[in-house]
Amino acid sequence: MDVRAAVVHGPNQPFVMETLQLDGPREGEVLVHIKTTGLCHSDLHIYEGKLPWAFPALLGHEAAGVVVECGPGVTKFKPGDHVIPFLIPHCEKCGYCHSSKTNLCVEAFSRLKPGESRFSLNGKPVTQLWGLGTFADYSVLPVNMLAKVRDDAPFDPICYIGCGATTGLGAALFAAKVEAGSSVVIFGLGGIGLNVVQGARLAGAKKIIGVDTNPAKEAIARQFGATDFVNPKAVEKLTSHLMKLTAGGADYTFECIGNPQVMRQAFECTNPAWGTSYVVGVAPQGAEVTSYPGHLMMGRHWTGCYMGGARVTKLPEIVDWYVDKKIDLDSLVTHRLKLEQINEGFELMRKGESIRSVIVL
Amino acid sequence: MDVRAAVVHGPNQPFVMETLQLDGPREGEVLVHIKTTGLCHSDLHIYEGKLPWAFPALLGHEAAGVVVECGPGVTKFKPGDHVIPFLIPHCEKCGYCHSSKTNLCVEAFSRLKPGESRFSLNGKPVTQLWGLGTFADYSVLPVNMLAKVRDDAPFDPICYIGCGATTGLGAALFAAKVEAGSSVVIFGLGGIGLNVVQGARLAGAKKIIGVDTNPAKEAIARQFGATDFVNPKAVEKLTSHLMKLTAGGADYTFECIGNPQVMRQAFECTNPAWGTSYVVGVAPQGAEVTSYPGHLMMGRHWTGCYMGGARVTKLPEIVDWYVDKKIDLDSLVTHRLKLEQINEGFELMRKGESIRSVIVL
Repeated sequence: MDVRAAVVHGPNQPFVMETLQLDGPREGEVLVHIKTTGLCHSDLHIYEGKLPWAFPALLGHEAAGVVVECGPGVTKFKPGDHVIPFLIPHCEKCGYCHSSKTNLCVEAFSRLKPGESRFSLNGKPVTQLWGLGTFADYSVLPVNMLAKVRDDAPFDPICYIGCGATTGLGAALFAAKVEAGSSVVIFGLGGIGLNVVQGARLAGAKKIIGVDTNPAKEAIARQFGATDFVNPKAVEKLTSHLMKLTAGGADYTFECIGNPQVMRQAFECTNPAWGTSYVVGVAPQGAEVTSYPGHLMMGRHWTGCYMGGARVTKLPEIVDWYVDKKIDLDSLVTHRLKLEQINEGFELMRKGESIRSVIVL
Repeated sequence: MDVRAAVVHGPNQPFVMETLQLDGPREGEVLVHIKTTGLCHSDLHIYEGKLPWAFPALLGHEAAGVVVECGPGVTKFKPGDHVIPFLIPHCEKCGYCHSSKTNLCVEAFSRLKPGESRFSLNGKPVTQLWGLGTFADYSVLPVNMLAKVRDDAPFDPICYIGCGATTGLGAALFAAKVEAGSSVVIFGLGGIGLNVVQGARLAGAKKIIGVDTNPAKEAIARQFGATDFVNPKAVEKLTSHLMKLTAGGADYTFECIGNPQVMRQAFECTNPAWGTSYVVGVAPQGAEVTSYPGHLMMGRHWTGCYMGGARVTKLPEIVDWYVDKKIDLDSLVTHRLKLEQINEGFELMRKGESIRSVIVL
């Protein structure tokens, strides 16, 4: 079938609206009518060539839609089901899927062979980002990367649960398992960081400190549950200041920027005996993190989590939280655009003027 | 009272046998007749001036002895009790003592004010290392740093449980809580590393890989439970080699040397999704550890433990393990010396010719 899609022909080249040919779903796949799709910083990294990828490419991975057609043997889904794709598959067979210590799966990033795609343009494949590709009216997606969600939840903003919202909420709730009464520091109050803030609030954290160099972030951070706001530019020594604010070091800290120097600060302001720091932001390739061994020795933990430590099976519950108004996503969707306006959306993201832009198809 | 002691008058100066004056025990203290005391690398670091300390000093902290006299109000001990001191107090009042996430206590290293001591030489104080000081016939020790142990256990080698043995055994058993079937890699097969090996064996680890540049360590590592031995000099790329040996990365690794480059290797050869690496060795002051943020991001854990994550209350159980022959300490006590031979013992330690030397008083 022919589908309307925003295609990137090479790094940093503008998106071009194209009519692509889409193969029907094969075994283990379904055809999904994409209803909404968010613009995520990971798409931007690929777009800018900071992470390796093959072009021409159909980017987009944060989406919500409706199943239109099932491939042979698919029994978990039926046409009409509302679904959200998720970057990590759940093959249910590998050692990772059987482990309670991780949300990863050995099938991750191996769905399509290099250059393989269900999409093509004039007979040549257009790659699907990480096996998905959602900047199009329709996409063919694998069932083990899809969550079936309630059909009374609006597609906008629940597409955000497919990546950014879950990455932040899950970091606090599924990865760190923040306990009630804890002290939590969040570095970087973008779309991920603010979701860590509301995750920490849901967990009952007592002290939730948002850290951002942009003073305009204070208001929304407090709206999402932050009890304190610190602008690193306004304090002399950030780490000592945060150690004092948390009476001896935070129980949990989250770096949601991708800056190795900030990762160090986030690590070093935790409680020396049990504090745990999560790397959530993606650092530039080749950059290194550094600290003193003595900071590890007494029991601090330095770790990270991918996609908020969540499995695709967690998504329906997070959609419930949104419908039940336990979490706020609406305040984070700052822009709604048509697919034709995607270049504008990427520009907003690059300039840091949006929290989340959602394409409504 | 007058006591016989080996005193260091300044960094790197030989121990001198002196007759010191020892005050009687005060509130919360007991007078202990020291029966055996081990020579530990921490003593050596202080001796060599690598860690700051005030001289003249009575070093020694790994010991076993008998209570001779109790200070006012002491009810937990009585004369005749066999005891082992431990570097971390257990005040039972602070937030750390009440936490299940740490074995530390806020009272640590604050027992005596700088320069304060129960020992003196010609009226001038001789400092007690970390509030203990056991290279003497007698010492005055605080009850919250003492474990009462069974009196049928021989003083030699159970003094070793006061520091080195527990640091290694506990790293595997109390800090990491290694599960049966796990894969474990231990870097550095000295007195600490070999105890991590036997801790991992007790925990039922399936693969226990000892790593040491000295090929002579293979035999004793296997005797203590290692299933594999790797000499870093004999393999091309240590990290990849260990990743392969553990089928995708170790569940737990332990750095028992104090070398930041080895700490990095130990961290990076763990399973990317859940592997945990413990810093056990003490690195030189100012040295830094480094890695890629991407190695943290997928869920690896980098942490450490002090004194094997043990509290003083754990020591009686470890003494039971020794008496019940669950653990071997005898093979690790390679030298037995008189107090007068302490300089010889430090020389053996410096040259790496001993695993543990024990002074029998």
